[in-house]
Amino acid sequence: MNDLMKMFSMTKPIIQAPMAGGAVTPKLASAVSNVGGLGSLASGYLKNGQLEEQVIEMKQLTDRAFQVNLFVPKEEEVPSEAQVQHWKEIIPQAEEARPFTPVEDEWKDFYQKVELLVKHRVKACSFTFNLPPEDAVNKLRDAGCLLLGTACSVEEAVMMEERGMDAVILQGMEAGGHRGAFLPSSAAVGVMSLIPQTVDRLRVPVIAAGGITDIRGVKASLALGAQSVQIGTAFLVCEESRAHPLHKQQIFHASATDTRLTKVFSGKEARGIVNAWMKENEKREQEVLPYPYLNTLTKPMRQDAARRNDPSRMSLWAGQGVGSLKEEMSVEEMLEQLW
Amino acid sequence: MNDLMKMFSMTKPIIQAPMAGGAVTPKLASAVSNVGGLGSLASGYLKNGQLEEQVIEMKQLTDRAFQVNLFVPKEEEVPSEAQVQHWKEIIPQAEEARPFTPVEDEWKDFYQKVELLVKHRVKACSFTFNLPPEDAVNKLRDAGCLLLGTACSVEEAVMMEERGMDAVILQGMEAGGHRGAFLPSSAAVGVMSLIPQTVDRLRVPVIAAGGITDIRGVKASLALGAQSVQIGTAFLVCEESRAHPLHKQQIFHASATDTRLTKVFSGKEARGIVNAWMKENEKREQEVLPYPYLNTLTKPMRQDAARRNDPSRMSLWAGQGVGSLKEEMSVEEMLEQLW
Repeated sequence: MNDLMKMFSMTKPIIQAPMAGGAVTPKLASAVSNVGGLGSLASGYLKNGQLEEQVIEMKQLTDRAFQVNLFVPKEEEVPSEAQVQHWKEIIPQAEEARPFTPVEDEWKDFYQKVELLVKHRVKACSFTFNLPPEDAVNKLRDAGCLLLGTACSVEEAVMMEERGMDAVILQGMEAGGHRGAFLPSSAAVGVMSLIPQTVDRLRVPVIAAGGITDIRGVKASLALGAQSVQIGTAFLVCEESRAHPLHKQQIFHASATDTRLTKVFSGKEARGIVNAWMKENEKREQEVLPYPYLNTLTKPMRQDAARRNDPSRMSLWAGQGVGSLKEEMSVEEMLEQLW
Repeated sequence: MNDLMKMFSMTKPIIQAPMAGGAVTPKLASAVSNVGGLGSLASGYLKNGQLEEQVIEMKQLTDRAFQVNLFVPKEEEVPSEAQVQHWKEIIPQAEEARPFTPVEDEWKDFYQKVELLVKHRVKACSFTFNLPPEDAVNKLRDAGCLLLGTACSVEEAVMMEERGMDAVILQGMEAGGHRGAFLPSSAAVGVMSLIPQTVDRLRVPVIAAGGITDIRGVKASLALGAQSVQIGTAFLVCEESRAHPLHKQQIFHASATDTRLTKVFSGKEARGIVNAWMKENEKREQEVLPYPYLNTLTKPMRQDAARRNDPSRMSLWAGQGVGSLKEEMSVEEMLEQLW
């Protein structure tokens, strides 16, 4: 089996999760790479030009490897006018939302980003939300880019390996933010079961993600058979993170039972700290518009809530590790604590 | 901190979970104790006389320590006639169900079992479904019985320690069968987050439970800060287990995503392999009768299904570790594999 640490010249088995939404900056990600982990940029909600700026800045801040995460588009059934209207009546400020992006435009954006990674010879690319198409896989591989696929079940992990991934990130149900699951049957599986069952089925290295916030979680993940871990929430609350100050405060005060999986922000399952928006819409979990439609409609509400410092309508993404995070520190201090 | 291994003179950090429902026999539990783990009897669905027979048989089969698990009654709101009638119309053979047991009778049964453990000087007693009352705690402690409390969150674990437990069993959301949660806020937390966060808050030893089926899970649990693990599903499929042969077969063929938490068998959250009964009643999860009312009403259906070898209406309890379990073996072989 390949050695993940060697693949990325890491000295600590720690990958910083690529958290789309603005918290992760080249400053944060480069700090992780510079101390021997693997930093990550999140391209999901960035325009092509913004991503290029971040990649150039990243290369100025570190000579070490880093990954860029790409959202892989997924054809979802287009919701009916009536369904959209129904949700527009529920979501405050939904009338300010931008028009829905056609899936063709998502694919165009995806391939532009692939070209960008090739152009800048980015060391690693990770994929979330779907299997990457074979032509993109081949293009990146030919350019020497190492490929990481996100999976939430044994079945998804096997599909990712078959699609040519160099390693698979296994996201347990403990993880904060969006789940990378792409099969309809992906029930929420915990890290403790997901890692060993998958390791037994794959030839490529496995990375454990979900609920890990200190060295005990890292050691446990390695004992389960992972070669490295991917950590989000603990980096989200670091000084270098641009997460909303209220989001960080909510994490410092939350316990593991305060987070829940929800679809009512984006249409796709994600773990966050329970707030008023989640409670008010609990009964609508099964009737959400699919991603990215609901995400588009709730964006003005979320942005306005952030401006007004109102956590009741922000998406307070956080993993079940929250109970261990009590104070802000630098990325370097966090990595010291992790390994 | 006390040393759990010394407390029970264990040579392997493995506790066999007390699975109520008939699978666990003195033969199975004594095999665990005899090889250096801690075997457990499940008194939950046993009459006092049956439990005494099992304790006496257990003492003949092993000189080593074992635990007896007690269900602690919980006052639930008595359902209305209309609610009961509604469910009687849904559940096949519900008209054959025995009358509901008044909670006073459950308490009477609980205290009789406490007396029994004192009389037979049982080494350890574990509690599930609620905090044990202080008088029972004192009576057992005075008799030299070591006490284990089951918790599913940091908050519940702290309450168990304050109630005088010698150790706390932390049951992650991966665990099969009934969850021991007793606070309304006990969201499903994975082992990876639950163990370290709780260890940081307790002075007594912690036991990890949920999704553990081999030595990797045991080592990971110890890395997280647990002193021992408690394992159910892997023992349920052992030769010595009296679980229904079809139940064992379902486990051997299931993957982690095939299990789900459900309330539609008993009224209380439990993890089992998804079958027709769970699917048909998915929309009724939020409107179940509380435990033990629903459990009483579904009992004839479950018993009849077992007799007819029909897994579609049996409760196929299993944890997320199922994907690692592929064949029947003896308890001794299983323990060899575990540590």
